[in-house]
Amino acid sequence: MSKVGVWLVGASGSVATATIAGTVMLSKRKAKPTGLVTALPQFRGVKFCRFDSLVFGGHEVRKPDLIGELRSLHSNSGLFSPEVIQLAAGTFRQVRRRIRPGIAAGCGRPVEQMVTLDLIKRRTPAKVVAHIRRDLEEFKEQTRSSRLVVVNLSSTEPPFRRLACHRSLSKLRRALAKPGRSPLPASSLYCMAALEAGAAYVNFTPSLGPDVPALLELAEETGGLVTGSDGKTGETLCKSVIAPLFVMRNLKILSWVGHNIFGNRDAAVLDDPKNKSSKVKSKDHLIRSIAGYSPQTLVTIENIASMGEWKTAWDHVHFEGFLGAKMVMQFVWQGCDSVLAAPLVLDLIRLAVLAQERGERGVMKQTACFFKSPLGVEEQNMFKQFNMLAEYLKG
Amino acid sequence: MSKVGVWLVGASGSVATATIAGTVMLSKRKAKPTGLVTALPQFRGVKFCRFDSLVFGGHEVRKPDLIGELRSLHSNSGLFSPEVIQLAAGTFRQVRRRIRPGIAAGCGRPVEQMVTLDLIKRRTPAKVVAHIRRDLEEFKEQTRSSRLVVVNLSSTEPPFRRLACHRSLSKLRRALAKPGRSPLPASSLYCMAALEAGAAYVNFTPSLGPDVPALLELAEETGGLVTGSDGKTGETLCKSVIAPLFVMRNLKILSWVGHNIFGNRDAAVLDDPKNKSSKVKSKDHLIRSIAGYSPQTLVTIENIASMGEWKTAWDHVHFEGFLGAKMVMQFVWQGCDSVLAAPLVLDLIRLAVLAQERGERGVMKQTACFFKSPLGVEEQNMFKQFNMLAEYLKG
Amino acid sequence: MSKVGVWLVGASGSVATATIAGTVMLSKRKAKPTGLVTALPQFRGVKFCRFDSLVFGGHEVRKPDLIGELRSLHSNSGLFSPEVIQLAAGTFRQVRRRIRPGIAAGCGRPVEQMVTLDLIKRRTPAKVVAHIRRDLEEFKEQTRSSRLVVVNLSSTEPPFRRLACHRSLSKLRRALAKPGRSPLPASSLYCMAALEAGAAYVNFTPSLGPDVPALLELAEETGGLVTGSDGKTGETLCKSVIAPLFVMRNLKILSWVGHNIFGNRDAAVLDDPKNKSSKVKSKDHLIRSIAGYSPQTLVTIENIASMGEWKTAWDHVHFEGFLGAKMVMQFVWQGCDSVLAAPLVLDLIRLAVLAQERGERGVMKQTACFFKSPLGVEEQNMFKQFNMLAEYLKG
Amino acid sequence: MSKVGVWLVGASGSVATATIAGTVMLSKRKAKPTGLVTALPQFRGVKFCRFDSLVFGGHEVRKPDLIGELRSLHSNSGLFSPEVIQLAAGTFRQVRRRIRPGIAAGCGRPVEQMVTLDLIKRRTPAKVVAHIRRDLEEFKEQTRSSRLVVVNLSSTEPPFRRLACHRSLSKLRRALAKPGRSPLPASSLYCMAALEAGAAYVNFTPSLGPDVPALLELAEETGGLVTGSDGKTGETLCKSVIAPLFVMRNLKILSWVGHNIFGNRDAAVLDDPKNKSSKVKSKDHLIRSIAGYSPQTLVTIENIASMGEWKTAWDHVHFEGFLGAKMVMQFVWQGCDSVLAAPLVLDLIRLAVLAQERGERGVMKQTACFFKSPLGVEEQNMFKQFNMLAEYLKG
Repeated sequence: MSKVGVWLVGASGSVATATIAGTVMLSKRKAKPTGLVTALPQFRGVKFCRFDSLVFGGHEVRKPDLIGELRSLHSNSGLFSPEVIQLAAGTFRQVRRRIRPGIAAGCGRPVEQMVTLDLIKRRTPAKVVAHIRRDLEEFKEQTRSSRLVVVNLSSTEPPFRRLACHRSLSKLRRALAKPGRSPLPASSLYCMAALEAGAAYVNFTPSLGPDVPALLELAEETGGLVTGSDGKTGETLCKSVIAPLFVMRNLKILSWVGHNIFGNRDAAVLDDPKNKSSKVKSKDHLIRSIAGYSPQTLVTIENIASMGEWKTAWDHVHFEGFLGAKMVMQFVWQGCDSVLAAPLVLDLIRLAVLAQERGERGVMKQTACFFKSPLGVEEQNMFKQFNMLAEYLKG
Repeated sequence: MSKVGVWLVGASGSVATATIAGTVMLSKRKAKPTGLVTALPQFRGVKFCRFDSLVFGGHEVRKPDLIGELRSLHSNSGLFSPEVIQLAAGTFRQVRRRIRPGIAAGCGRPVEQMVTLDLIKRRTPAKVVAHIRRDLEEFKEQTRSSRLVVVNLSSTEPPFRRLACHRSLSKLRRALAKPGRSPLPASSLYCMAALEAGAAYVNFTPSLGPDVPALLELAEETGGLVTGSDGKTGETLCKSVIAPLFVMRNLKILSWVGHNIFGNRDAAVLDDPKNKSSKVKSKDHLIRSIAGYSPQTLVTIENIASMGEWKTAWDHVHFEGFLGAKMVMQFVWQGCDSVLAAPLVLDLIRLAVLAQERGERGVMKQTACFFKSPLGVEEQNMFKQFNMLAEYLKG
Repeated sequence: MSKVGVWLVGASGSVATATIAGTVMLSKRKAKPTGLVTALPQFRGVKFCRFDSLVFGGHEVRKPDLIGELRSLHSNSGLFSPEVIQLAAGTFRQVRRRIRPGIAAGCGRPVEQMVTLDLIKRRTPAKVVAHIRRDLEEFKEQTRSSRLVVVNLSSTEPPFRRLACHRSLSKLRRALAKPGRSPLPASSLYCMAALEAGAAYVNFTPSLGPDVPALLELAEETGGLVTGSDGKTGETLCKSVIAPLFVMRNLKILSWVGHNIFGNRDAAVLDDPKNKSSKVKSKDHLIRSIAGYSPQTLVTIENIASMGEWKTAWDHVHFEGFLGAKMVMQFVWQGCDSVLAAPLVLDLIRLAVLAQERGERGVMKQTACFFKSPLGVEEQNMFKQFNMLAEYLKG
Repeated sequence: MSKVGVWLVGASGSVATATIAGTVMLSKRKAKPTGLVTALPQFRGVKFCRFDSLVFGGHEVRKPDLIGELRSLHSNSGLFSPEVIQLAAGTFRQVRRRIRPGIAAGCGRPVEQMVTLDLIKRRTPAKVVAHIRRDLEEFKEQTRSSRLVVVNLSSTEPPFRRLACHRSLSKLRRALAKPGRSPLPASSLYCMAALEAGAAYVNFTPSLGPDVPALLELAEETGGLVTGSDGKTGETLCKSVIAPLFVMRNLKILSWVGHNIFGNRDAAVLDDPKNKSSKVKSKDHLIRSIAGYSPQTLVTIENIASMGEWKTAWDHVHFEGFLGAKMVMQFVWQGCDSVLAAPLVLDLIRLAVLAQERGERGVMKQTACFFKSPLGVEEQNMFKQFNMLAEYLKG
């Protein structure tokens, strides 16, 4: 069995921890693939890579402590049985040895304050990209992996200004060669390194990542793969099925208000208004896109420490029916962020490997249903996005 | 412009009243077609019948008082502007004159207690059908309508036992010719009369109606049309988009509880446990059908007088994600029954006329997305049902 | 330090288990007295009995397995840390040895199906009472307890018809001496035995228990103590503070609907319509009592297995304000039954011991705030009930 | 019957309009006093002023249009029957003639943009106060009122910095005599004028108003009366009964999040972050005060235009029970702001007149239960506040 190297950016965060622990449990057949789209009965015929073929490594800007993270998810948020902690311990020790210092350039103040490991020290961005690429290639070699998938699970970066040098690869390379302020944030530097190594890059965060024309050019050149941004795990997922309800019944959405609260490390990062603005933007464009008009919308996301991993959203939809009657639908979503995200991360790894096997390159449009901000696809209606995936997997 | 005769069973109930008032407002271009599926931009190319071509008549078992009903919807449930009441008055007087006594056979105790007009008096069911048919044909003639659509808007009947004579038209005819207990409930007698008159029959209630093999046989014979049962206007509509969310993400539904409260005449009829059981059955099979397995489900529907037309549903979905994490989604739907139903009634009239124009006969499978219990179609997923309609309208 | 014997009826159920485990944790100062009313700062001056003075025994109709119960609360409902299970194990083994077979007379079909231990075998009810009393007295002696408190934590019995013999102690004794159908249900037989032993009897269930004139007569005679019925832990607790809001603002409650779902053993017992009717009655009279008029009310309580200990209630309050405006308040309570009940059980034990020390007898009216159906007190407003307790504790 | 002059600041806003219309309906016995605390059966013995003794006038900074406001409340927010509009019209015309231009000093940008009538034109604040006082006295004289109550119903001002000159009346008078930036915002200038006229001043808004030591000094001097600030009509009202629930059960509040949405003119004013900060502050201190410790709290209030008068709040209370179990209570309040406020305004007028009749002066502490920010009373627990009122009314 050939191995798949999975490189996690943010390798000891809660999603990374849940992803690795979940892989152990699936490999040992101690857990069912609940929450994995690729495990749906309708996709039974597709040859996805096996869970026990995955080997993990990654970048981290904090002192990595995977077992500590898993224990704290158990005691603070009531996740995982003691059995999971016990069975995953060996793999966790192994992964820990493969973690390298990451970069926090452009990640905003909250992340910069957490940083204890940083590979950037007076180097040009180009050298940083080269360094990351070396980390990736060494990992692939040492683990004898035949495939490489990089997944960015780090916290939300502040919005990054679009620059002229983003428009073409040659301009971008020139800009990166200069010392000083990087023309790309960390997420895009990781993406660039991954693409240069011919790997697939999955951007599970709302950060800029691959959404840069020059990087898409690079993907075409190297045969690398990229996805959209920001995993769709909770409130936005709900919106992407409920908004179509109003459209299909020709009911007029008057306003849509969504308030989100949660309390993990991600939430702490979003306490900074700059980082938060990226997230809110990623969550807010959907209603307009599905409805085809612009009702008043409001999205907030707040760090409430006691909530831990439990992200709770309250959405209030005010709508108008026939003859001016105003009505209301409300929903409350009480989900656990990391265990909703982890199976989707595994799905995206499997879909990336499948695309590599099929010899594809560039944007993985078939993954639109996994992201709040798909790349290369305008569609936000979950059903239509899911149909795209189903069509692709038939092929 | 050729006219479309619309015969409403339950002609002075709240849905009928809202349907007629809405038609007046649309005809006078005083209201927008909000809530009408057939008015969606994507169906702009389809030639549906015009609103001002519709003329109304109907059966009623109570003393009809359409203006009284409209006024009470305004004062008790806050519906409609005074303008609507004023503009609809003329049409209401006209319609009132065309209302004939209906039948309450097999409608259950609560309906039987309301009855002030009843055409059944020691007649065989066959004679009742003939009588209804005559009402329909006279209406069509007097209004010079070129088309006829019968819509059943009456309250829920108790479940009706399937009988051997339902299996073929010849057996059914023999059974109907006998005096005594009717082998069909009122909803099916209306349906039979409509089909014998070559009309379309839309069963907006959970009652048995056209769901009888012998009646489908009749439709094929006479060129009549029938639909599924029980308009999908609120909680079940929500379920039919939200249940697919869990399926598409491979999240396991552990239990789904739905509590409904409302307080109009329909609610009063559902106070009788027998009538209620038809409704609950119609609302409860969906989760199983969409999920493909059988989580514990519970549906209640209760008559809370103060609520009037405002049907409020609370649904609690308990689900399991990756690694055994149990999570919850809840929604609250606060909708106004009759204004949600009325535009769908207009849609179904327009779709029936279109099918007549296209020379179709039998079950209108394309209307599955309008019903809690579609006929001839297993699919309960709203998105797939909507796609069926869109495909049909393209053709 | 003198010991307090606590005899739990339903000794290996979830509330009993949580109560004993909690006592261990409090005694070892490993837990804070969160949820204990008697631990409020304002009652700091009152000399309550110490947690480490409590020793437990009890009756049980199932094969007792306290550690199994604790483990299942942990794995199914996410309660308690592994530390609790470890620290409580010794005490649990001790308590297990003191458990005696209980009685299931009049407890309804679901309980009777669970019974593996039953002390009733062709004996008259009077002999059963004598037998229970002997169990209590032996327990008190063997544990060298100076005080005895009996707490009924068993599941809801069906309603029990009031009989003429309930009216006086002499009549009751005559009726109990006859063989055949017992004139009292199990809860009242336990209560009688407790009172004959001069103990306090706390009726934490909705069952009849002490609500029998003859038993109150007995309490006065023997110096025994009794309380109201049915611990107020969740939805009803909320109602008892929220209903006064509407009263204090002179807002008119139009209707109050409360739907409860949960899935533990208690829930399974309530699946039987007879047992359920006692519970619903106990939950439903409050609004009327606080409001002083009778809005339409509805209370349901349903067994949804996946919920385990997590009792979730949705309440919908429809109310009218000035000039006829109709408005809505809704609340959702997501509480964990046994950990809400256990600290109140400890409170009631401490209050019973205090009353014994003060030489009181008969109904403990000061405990009204703990019960859905207080005894000897009409007041249902939580604030007024709490003030009664505060006044009492000042004295 | 002697008349009571009621001077409304913000005389053609929604609360003013509902207050006047309600007074008309109560006077004509066409409405019940639902929502009026002073109409509670328990206060039946108290001699409150009659509704038909009230005459209205007021200040307004916009072009006053009371009938327009009433009509728009009817058509946009579904309030009031056509009968109300018809019966109130005469009184509305009368009141309209008595409206004088108000002041917008320190009211923040959104209010200043609405201003079409402003009495401040290069005058010192002292002259403005004198001018307002003259308005009040002329109104009292022209309407032959024996009593005068000023109620501030205007929108929220931004927070106003405490100044040294606020500390004593003599310093304040000196500061007001100087031209330039006023040392008091509009709400406090109105209050000062009212007190100088010996009237009662009710501060129904979160603005500074009477919360200035020098003004309390003035009240003692002139025999004027003042109240706390910011009428408690919705979410905060709920908090003030629900927070005590957790206190009385010794359950630990971990976090309390409250999100409010509404869409009337008040909401538009709160769109300005400065004005909003006063409101949020007034809503946020309560939990801390009732709990006696500081759980994390969050309050937002957002202008969602489609909501009109319907203020909807979602509160999420995360709390800890025995043995570390974390639980959740949520509530949704769907109330109509102006019809909740209007009866309380009438209550406060009646209580002010009663206090005048009893010869009281200074802070009306007995009104604490009406305000988010009571004056001279720390208590935030609604039940304790209500008991204060009940005690006062007994006296």
